[in-house]
Amino acid sequence: MTVINKSLKINTDSHFQIIDISSEIKTAFNEINEGEDSIEKGILAVFTKHSTSAIVVNENEKGLLNDFEFILEDLVKDKNGYDHDVIDNNAASHLKSFLLGSSETIPIINGKIDLGTWQSIFFIELDGPRRNRTIDLVFIGE
Amino acid sequence: MTVINKSLKINTDSHFQIIDISSEIKTAFNEINEGEDSIEKGILAVFTKHSTSAIVVNENEKGLLNDFEFILEDLVKDKNGYDHDVIDNNAASHLKSFLLGSSETIPIINGKIDLGTWQSIFFIELDGPRRNRTIDLVFIGE
Amino acid sequence: MTVINKSLKINTDSHFQIIDISSEIKTAFNEINEGEDSIEKGILAVFTKHSTSAIVVNENEKGLLNDFEFILEDLVKDKNGYDHDVIDNNAASHLKSFLLGSSETIPIINGKIDLGTWQSIFFIELDGPRRNRTIDLVFIGE
Repeated sequence: MTVINKSLKINTDSHFQIIDISSEIKTAFNEINEGEDSIEKGILAVFTKHSTSAIVVNENEKGLLNDFEFILEDLVKDKNGYDHDVIDNNAASHLKSFLLGSSETIPIINGKIDLGTWQSIFFIELDGPRRNRTIDLVFIGE
Repeated sequence: MTVINKSLKINTDSHFQIIDISSEIKTAFNEINEGEDSIEKGILAVFTKHSTSAIVVNENEKGLLNDFEFILEDLVKDKNGYDHDVIDNNAASHLKSFLLGSSETIPIINGKIDLGTWQSIFFIELDGPRRNRTIDLVFIGE
Repeated sequence: MTVINKSLKINTDSHFQIIDISSEIKTAFNEINEGEDSIEKGILAVFTKHSTSAIVVNENEKGLLNDFEFILEDLVKDKNGYDHDVIDNNAASHLKSFLLGSSETIPIINGKIDLGTWQSIFFIELDGPRRNRTIDLVFIGE
């Protein structure tokens, strides 16, 4: 059994931003599998360390990324008299994160991260721009 | 430590469909535990390979399943001028998947998948009917 | 490799209640790491056994907890002619759980549960008050 951690660091450019981290994750995984402790089957846990961001698995199509932004704005109105806005003016960002979730767990099968054909792993920035957003990856398997 | 993967294949019959996969999962797990590499404690990762579907744990009561469909329709209006509908006419299906998530991780305790009395594991089809929907299961434990 | 299970038991006091379980989880983890089977790196799976509750990771700020309640009430109207209310008068509670999810998976890195500075792990009661709500923790790593 092997357990390997890698953390990705990301700088974001705008208030709302969807970043496809699939290829960075695959690169990190390939580096692991070139070493001695390769993983043929297991899981990958993806976790964001920030409560104004989210981890989501879905399709990377440009129009759809706009639709993701639209639905979040539609469900969580900006500046809606939220209590948290008195403390730190980003309640809507937290509420969107609250609905989307902070982690996804993805299978590793036959030495590959087993995403479907149309699936990407996204980091969603909900309160940018920010420096050094950290996404933890934990690979467990054998 | 043991890591075992099983993938379920499902054909769906209608555009929206909730399928209780608990008993198929329990059957797969029982087959594992009749073998040499039994798992007494650990986790089960359940992951859908399709970005117009979701994995959810909740109660299997017929009326409630209707309510799940209602709330998704209520939150994500169909044909709402979504950008993705120009490319592939299923934006609302992706948006529902986006809100629900692609994975759940469930404990294995005392040789059982430790669901509560009123919990079932559901695959939710959001853009059917489809053939060969794939759900990955990864059992890890000892 | 080590796999350790702990289950937390919680009594809730009101219909809607957000309970920060981070310190209980850290205490459980520290007890493990004082023993022989310490975990330096791995994952923690947190799972609620109840389909009218949820597990969420976000910030513990008093005003924000009110905002979480507000957004759930706003998205899922109470007593809305739901089918499940005929059977068991708590459809809205199930629907909120449906949207939030039953599990989160959190990395363990350098012998710590690797939450961000502003992150807490919450059990969300959506249909209380209840006795003996059970939250499963599974720690896996080495």
